[in-house]
Amino acid sequence: MIGSRFEYVKHFEQPDSLLPNTWIVVRIDGRGFTKFSTKYAFEKPNDKRALELMNAAARAVMAELPDITIAYGVSDEYSFVFHKTCALFERRSSKLVSTIVSTFTAYYVHLWPTYFSEAPLSPPLPSFDGRAVCYPTVQNLRDYMSWRQVDCHINNLYNTTFWALIQLGGMDGTEAEKTLKVNFLAPMNKTMSLMLRKGTYAADKNEILFSKFSINYNNEPEMYKKGSYELVEPGTHNAALEADILAEPVQKSKTQAENDRKRRAKARIVVEHLDIIKDEFWDRRPWLLSNKPGKVPKEP
Amino acid sequence: MIGSRFEYVKHFEQPDSLLPNTWIVVRIDGRGFTKFSTKYAFEKPNDKRALELMNAAARAVMAELPDITIAYGVSDEYSFVFHKTCALFERRSSKLVSTIVSTFTAYYVHLWPTYFSEAPLSPPLPSFDGRAVCYPTVQNLRDYMSWRQVDCHINNLYNTTFWALIQLGGMDGTEAEKTLKVNFLAPMNKTMSLMLRKGTYAADKNEILFSKFSINYNNEPEMYKKGSYELVEPGTHNAALEADILAEPVQKSKTQAENDRKRRAKARIVVEHLDIIKDEFWDRRPWLLSNKPGKVPKEP
Amino acid sequence: MIGSRFEYVKHFEQPDSLLPNTWIVVRIDGRGFTKFSTKYAFEKPNDKRALELMNAAARAVMAELPDITIAYGVSDEYSFVFHKTCALFERRSSKLVSTIVSTFTAYYVHLWPTYFSEAPLSPPLPSFDGRAVCYPTVQNLRDYMSWRQVDCHINNLYNTTFWALIQLGGMDGTEAEKTLKVNFLAPMNKTMSLMLRKGTYAADKNEILFSKFSINYNNEPEMYKKGSYELVEPGTHNAALEADILAEPVQKSKTQAENDRKRRAKARIVVEHLDIIKDEFWDRRPWLLSNKPGKVPKEP
Amino acid sequence: MIGSRFEYVKHFEQPDSLLPNTWIVVRIDGRGFTKFSTKYAFEKPNDKRALELMNAAARAVMAELPDITIAYGVSDEYSFVFHKTCALFERRSSKLVSTIVSTFTAYYVHLWPTYFSEAPLSPPLPSFDGRAVCYPTVQNLRDYMSWRQVDCHINNLYNTTFWALIQLGGMDGTEAEKTLKVNFLAPMNKTMSLMLRKGTYAADKNEILFSKFSINYNNEPEMYKKGSYELVEPGTHNAALEADILAEPVQKSKTQAENDRKRRAKARIVVEHLDIIKDEFWDRRPWLLSNKPGKVPKEP
Repeated sequence: MIGSRFEYVKHFEQPDSLLPNTWIVVRIDGRGFTKFSTKYAFEKPNDKRALELMNAAARAVMAELPDITIAYGVSDEYSFVFHKTCALFERRSSKLVSTIVSTFTAYYVHLWPTYFSEAPLSPPLPSFDGRAVCYPTVQNLRDYMSWRQVDCHINNLYNTTFWALIQLGGMDGTEAEKTLKVNFLAPMNKTMSLMLRKGTYAADKNEILFSKFSINYNNEPEMYKKGSYELVEPGTHNAALEADILAEPVQKSKTQAENDRKRRAKARIVVEHLDIIKDEFWDRRPWLLSNKPGKVPKEP
Repeated sequence: MIGSRFEYVKHFEQPDSLLPNTWIVVRIDGRGFTKFSTKYAFEKPNDKRALELMNAAARAVMAELPDITIAYGVSDEYSFVFHKTCALFERRSSKLVSTIVSTFTAYYVHLWPTYFSEAPLSPPLPSFDGRAVCYPTVQNLRDYMSWRQVDCHINNLYNTTFWALIQLGGMDGTEAEKTLKVNFLAPMNKTMSLMLRKGTYAADKNEILFSKFSINYNNEPEMYKKGSYELVEPGTHNAALEADILAEPVQKSKTQAENDRKRRAKARIVVEHLDIIKDEFWDRRPWLLSNKPGKVPKEP
Repeated sequence: MIGSRFEYVKHFEQPDSLLPNTWIVVRIDGRGFTKFSTKYAFEKPNDKRALELMNAAARAVMAELPDITIAYGVSDEYSFVFHKTCALFERRSSKLVSTIVSTFTAYYVHLWPTYFSEAPLSPPLPSFDGRAVCYPTVQNLRDYMSWRQVDCHINNLYNTTFWALIQLGGMDGTEAEKTLKVNFLAPMNKTMSLMLRKGTYAADKNEILFSKFSINYNNEPEMYKKGSYELVEPGTHNAALEADILAEPVQKSKTQAENDRKRRAKARIVVEHLDIIKDEFWDRRPWLLSNKPGKVPKEP
Repeated sequence: MIGSRFEYVKHFEQPDSLLPNTWIVVRIDGRGFTKFSTKYAFEKPNDKRALELMNAAARAVMAELPDITIAYGVSDEYSFVFHKTCALFERRSSKLVSTIVSTFTAYYVHLWPTYFSEAPLSPPLPSFDGRAVCYPTVQNLRDYMSWRQVDCHINNLYNTTFWALIQLGGMDGTEAEKTLKVNFLAPMNKTMSLMLRKGTYAADKNEILFSKFSINYNNEPEMYKKGSYELVEPGTHNAALEADILAEPVQKSKTQAENDRKRRAKARIVVEHLDIIKDEFWDRRPWLLSNKPGKVPKEP
């Protein structure tokens, strides 16, 4: 309306647009979730309700921000991937991070009663922090996703064993930790190194380690072993969207963006728990890494 | 636990620590709140419940992050000020912004039923974006705060008149806008320019303008005219904290920080609606701009 | 040796490492070279000595910094390309830019008498500014190089005509500019647009435009029409370097880096004036864009 | 002239403007000057010609960039201070750093024969790297300057003793180093710590240490002990400039800036070797830290 002599302070805001033509990953992490999970008595080593709440909040983020290509979650963290051509918020880092973190938090708190009906939230409330990272190539991006999934696997293998020693073996935390150091970590390192050097991710091999603890790790839920990814599958958008696949990717108008949001909101966002390290996952979903961001191919 | 060949992707994260010895302001803004306020039928030009919900969420942020010196809110935005010596999260911009945005959102959603009991939240949920800006001097910081309060004043003066023309004068939006252009903005600009040039902020002078519309602007609630600031007043901390005033500001240990958080949570965070442009406000609260961040002076 | 109470000021230096796995281009530009070229009576539209001095200074930069893959110069600017795996100075922007700008300037001043023996330098001396830009993909990098060469072509076409009108046609500057606006820029824009849309860069087509001014643009020196690039050609390094082609690219030790510098200093750095927009240029020099930075393939 | 389809690459350049209202220090450092000083047989521990050449190059930088408030040099480094209101190059970091580094290098190479007439430069030529750092307060800036001068003092004290042991005492480098470790560094640390804790910088106290080596450090040239600073002293500008002192600091027009440059070129830039840690230095030169950048007060 009217300028004031104070307006000059606007020029202290530094630009923070992320490098063009790079994949943007926004990862959010629960703040103080060790304490938080104790307060609400999360089941150990995995709480199904807590993970499904994370997935539900992520799904809402995906629905509200159609520029997101894929999301991957494990434990109290979630990574959201923007296509390298993404122009949302002029790629401003703080806008991207704060919008995702805020939307995720809103749904996490809002949906809490659906998953934890018996334990209403009370202060201090759950919150998340976040950051944006750029990856120049598809290989870098896939390695990022693989890094998170390997982390998921290793942590889950460790935690499953740790809590088995306590819950089934009657050990206390210190004993369990000590036992794991001797029987688990050393061979673990050797096996993992081998696996990783061969470029494969063979969960089945880990069974050997587990034989000592009489747990069939194979039978553990996939969500615990693999984490959760979310994406839009072909055939779940309406015809107009599917037609987009043939068009050149262009800067979207405001109305188009709004329509995208609505279509996305209706689209079936798939939550699954597959190996995203192997080529197969990406080969079968070529639209994820194609130059048609957010586009879904026609079904044959 | 174990390194994988994918871990190199960590090095793509760029450092974003803010320049030391500068005041940090994190401002958050409601996303799409015009639409949101229509959905939940916010009263115009000001909805008391909505503003009090903003204040309550901000108060929770202040309680959880004791490094915050003062906060100032107006409409759907809130600014949080960190002392220039703040070392929280190593001053990393994305951590500061995302933590504040997430905490604020969590409380906004959680406390919603307290203020809007008759209108439960439904998707799309309210969310906020945020950014961090550094101000090197106290003058820059005060000018930032003044900028926001002048904005509050001008917008409220305009909105109050606009809605009076509609609600009391029976105009539609277009007529009201047109009337304001002729009767309001031109003299407004002249008066404001004069006020601003003189370096004063004389709300009483605006009454002249309002005489035409038969509204006594002076009688409008202070919260609407001045916005809301939040801070910790002297005498509301326990003795240990008060003693800190004599100590040198030092890097806090983790335990100290946790204790600070707890004391802050108990401290009476004051919400008031004063003129923060004039010197008087700051002169009376010397601890805000002193070199003892978060410290409150002993009462005489 | 000993820390002082002032050392804290070191922490105000902000990190500025460039995003990993991206091509880095450092471009330098002459400061005030319009004035400078008048002072030393550079020939118009092109001064062979001045361009060759630029090339000589760039060659020295290439010899001293073996991490540079290719350099391209036109007029008073030069672009230096670092391979995307480059780890020099930890990819710190200010180190890369300042080192190149300083080295280039040193040789420009030092070699000046070789090219302008009759006109010794006097203050104000020639100087250059610089900047670093990251390009995530080979396509982006090639488009950058093409951008500079298209600029070279268009400017040279314009300047050649402009100065012909003055030197041969007896016009003054204003008349020449006016004539060019009518006869040159309009058809130029049309032809260039066509060329660019077809993705080709057909200098021969420009002759049509030139027929009006009785100049055979084809006969102009290639250095003026194409600019100059510099790179290390196969067969000009010693055997040890050539053997590197089979090795994995690894972080170099300090000694290796020094050896690289010495070999590079001895290697024949080629200066040529070819079309670098077409695929052919890059297809014939696969080592430039390969994952073996600075490596030169064995000759068959 | 004409846009090409390659021009999009311009948008990959990231903005790098430095935070407003902060003091900018650009420090440049000689690259590989240990080797360089050996090649040209610099006298040890200090070479008067080499230091005077540094000062002459810095003086040329000061003359060409009137925005510089003060410069301070020691050994092969030089720091240039821009006033916090500086708007040169829109405060872009890479422009500021590269321009200073390039101008400095040009004069260093150009003036070399004046100081080293008997030893013409040959490749590899001397070069410098640089960086820009922001300091929010006068105290931070003064602490930066003090940091460099304390460094100068400590290094010079050490080097003077080291080379005395070799040149006068007949030791070799290893013996000298060993001797210094025992006799010098331990008491040095203690004395310096004491001095620094008291906030004073008392060069005279260091004589105690030197008594062991029979050198009167007091008699060493001030340039070696204190380094060199450069600034414009009152009375050396013409009347027009002096009149500026009463004017408000405003954004300069291009012509004004050019005039400033010319006046500066004529002004007497003072090179001196005083204690810049003590208040006295700054108290006597109030224009340096005032809000009138580059202005010089009238003489009484």
